[in-house]
Amino acid sequence: MRFVAIGGDAAGMSAASRAKRNLNDWDVTVFEQGFDVSYSACGMPYNIADPGRDINDLVVRQARVFKEKQGIDLKTGHCVNKIDRGKKIVSGITLDGNQFTVSYDKLLIATGASPIIPDLPGFDLNGVMALKSLDSGRRIKEYIRARNVNKIAIIGMGYIALEMCEAFRAVGIDVSVVKPRPGFIPWMSPNLSKVVQDEVVKNGIKLYLGHKIMGIEETGANRLRVICEDLSIDCHMVLVAVGVWPNSRLAGEAGLNLGVANSISVERDMTTSDKDIYAAGDCADAYHVVTGKKVWIPLALRANRAGWAVADHLSGQNVQLDGVAGTAVFKTFDLQVARTGLGIEEAKKEGFEPVETVIESRSRAHAHPGSTTIYAQMVGDRRSGRLLGAQMVGCEGVAHRINAIAVALHQKMTVESFSQCDLAYAPPFSPVWDPTLTAANQLLKML
Amino acid sequence: MRFVAIGGDAAGMSAASRAKRNLNDWDVTVFEQGFDVSYSACGMPYNIADPGRDINDLVVRQARVFKEKQGIDLKTGHCVNKIDRGKKIVSGITLDGNQFTVSYDKLLIATGASPIIPDLPGFDLNGVMALKSLDSGRRIKEYIRARNVNKIAIIGMGYIALEMCEAFRAVGIDVSVVKPRPGFIPWMSPNLSKVVQDEVVKNGIKLYLGHKIMGIEETGANRLRVICEDLSIDCHMVLVAVGVWPNSRLAGEAGLNLGVANSISVERDMTTSDKDIYAAGDCADAYHVVTGKKVWIPLALRANRAGWAVADHLSGQNVQLDGVAGTAVFKTFDLQVARTGLGIEEAKKEGFEPVETVIESRSRAHAHPGSTTIYAQMVGDRRSGRLLGAQMVGCEGVAHRINAIAVALHQKMTVESFSQCDLAYAPPFSPVWDPTLTAANQLLKML
Repeated sequence: MRFVAIGGDAAGMSAASRAKRNLNDWDVTVFEQGFDVSYSACGMPYNIADPGRDINDLVVRQARVFKEKQGIDLKTGHCVNKIDRGKKIVSGITLDGNQFTVSYDKLLIATGASPIIPDLPGFDLNGVMALKSLDSGRRIKEYIRARNVNKIAIIGMGYIALEMCEAFRAVGIDVSVVKPRPGFIPWMSPNLSKVVQDEVVKNGIKLYLGHKIMGIEETGANRLRVICEDLSIDCHMVLVAVGVWPNSRLAGEAGLNLGVANSISVERDMTTSDKDIYAAGDCADAYHVVTGKKVWIPLALRANRAGWAVADHLSGQNVQLDGVAGTAVFKTFDLQVARTGLGIEEAKKEGFEPVETVIESRSRAHAHPGSTTIYAQMVGDRRSGRLLGAQMVGCEGVAHRINAIAVALHQKMTVESFSQCDLAYAPPFSPVWDPTLTAANQLLKML
Repeated sequence: MRFVAIGGDAAGMSAASRAKRNLNDWDVTVFEQGFDVSYSACGMPYNIADPGRDINDLVVRQARVFKEKQGIDLKTGHCVNKIDRGKKIVSGITLDGNQFTVSYDKLLIATGASPIIPDLPGFDLNGVMALKSLDSGRRIKEYIRARNVNKIAIIGMGYIALEMCEAFRAVGIDVSVVKPRPGFIPWMSPNLSKVVQDEVVKNGIKLYLGHKIMGIEETGANRLRVICEDLSIDCHMVLVAVGVWPNSRLAGEAGLNLGVANSISVERDMTTSDKDIYAAGDCADAYHVVTGKKVWIPLALRANRAGWAVADHLSGQNVQLDGVAGTAVFKTFDLQVARTGLGIEEAKKEGFEPVETVIESRSRAHAHPGSTTIYAQMVGDRRSGRLLGAQMVGCEGVAHRINAIAVALHQKMTVESFSQCDLAYAPPFSPVWDPTLTAANQLLKML
């Protein structure tokens, strides 16, 4: 029996490794179009801007370990371009130009996501870069080094853009950020978004919000200009960080059902509309634990978890993934920014009757040295009393606090139940009432 | 109508403040035997050893604010010594020696807990101190200052002892710790206890475990000697930190039911065996969310929460407190030490079939600078698959991580359900699989 995975990143390699452990007598083959497998993609922002660190430090496990130690037939430089579901074969071409074909009993599509590159003039110029694969990180890092880049324009304002702001500033690079929409972090409660915006501006980032981008021009050797309707920004390099889309073309061409945002539609057991084909990772959708509906929120943990789930299902286990809560955290300068569940606008759209509270609390106890402000937002549903989501911003103690709320969302807890939780308290770490409890107590009064 | 609270600390003042807000036409009277109300008791270790900080910084709200701004009839220096349930009056004596009597419609006993002082020779000597009230903290701080204390023996090894170790070492005081039992932190998994012990020893604390204490002698002016069976420790001051017991004598003499560890037995609505008398805070018991049984775990959050619950019940709300998970955290030197739920021995005693895993994980992602080891223990029940408890030790990211598990315990989640939770990930804060998830994944294999 042969299990074939297309894509050798988080989901693909997690599935292949676990499948080989679970089912030692199966052939496990992975096709990866690049040459890097199993690396910390999310670690790239922190590495790229630091000339003292080798980007290959981000590799968690070398390709040869998978091949030699784990017995996985890992084929890098292999680009699959067709799935024949009738014959149960995949075929493609190597980077050397050789055709290949292999049959499968079970197939996993783990083709990930790709950066969105706006279809505008100049986005194909040399020096206009996007960050996704380790190889793209390698190219960006080398570009900055080789050309002494010290002026960068970032287009877009997502997690990666905000992380790169900090990373670039840390090595003294001048950074301008431009985006078409007027809101700084649109999914965030305006009070909290303002706190993050102030931090970014305080650290010397030039922000240009609400400027429609027309294109990019080359103005000289290593000189680029981002052209907006009413503004132009000169720089040495442009980082395009407007988001990603799922690599679902292969699945779509094979006739598999696509769902939210064109991602591959999967059941809780990770199977697609073809029971012999799984999809996992950034190319696939998932259930949202709050709404019970399908969403496409491509993040690292669920990719790893989905990879394992595929291997477990393959070996006959009853797999039913709970889904995602949309829990995420990032760091920008001195701030930790975290979220889980639904924002107020999302909650309205989903048919809830949402009520929101925004509080300011402290990271440590009354009179404890080093205490800083924690800003917390919490959303509940007036009809059911359910906790729907939360957002937090602060200098410390935000990144892990959000997890308590994420667990509550998985359990569909009410705000009242959550407010009763016995959370940890000691003066160096929290007020007696943890900020998450203070938010819940406030929200409870409004429900 | 009159609501009377005996005790003006966390539970008493929380109840009184909220009662006055909820029921403005009621008389609210609080009797406090000392003169400090509403202060951060848990903040004392960090303040005492720092000569640069005023201990009164720990006062959250002055007595006069409760009286003048909130309209609470707060009587400090008033020691209640009798409750007459038939006549519904309490009586006592002021520090000036005046008798007082007042009637109540509803009464709250919030008399707290007192340090256990072993009944051994010399524990009444000058310089043998215990830390509980702000006034005791004030005396200790003044004693150290006035007598240039630079050699302290601590008897006992609980949270306060460990916090005081750090605090005393921070100002260069020589610290010896002695305790009769051989285990360093008996409730903790030995591997994790060892990590904390190594940290304490590395920071110059002299540990004497398993030494039976016979008494304390005075050996000169400001000179004390702790005498053990096989050891004696010379010092300038002794801190007794062997634990606390509930101040339940008043309740017991009034014929109210006492429960676990002689604490006052209360229902989920905070009433005692007399429906007109509540008890809350360190003097009262609570339900444990894992076992459903009564426990006595005196900690600050539940005292505040119970105080509010009393006021809410008083004003006719349906109050049913969930109970405690035994969640706690403390800091000693560079380590954060946290727990929630049951340890393996407690779980056995409670009739579970517990299985334990102890893992080592990282505080940050692979290859992320500044990453340190996180040690996590997790206990599950083989029969039901339920998550029963966890313990964690590490230099960062422990204090708040434990809360996610605490929420899971409130919800009686299985280890499998918890392992599915969508927790936050970003390289500066966590590996992709949060240490709590790694522990759950490992434990799942063993169940």
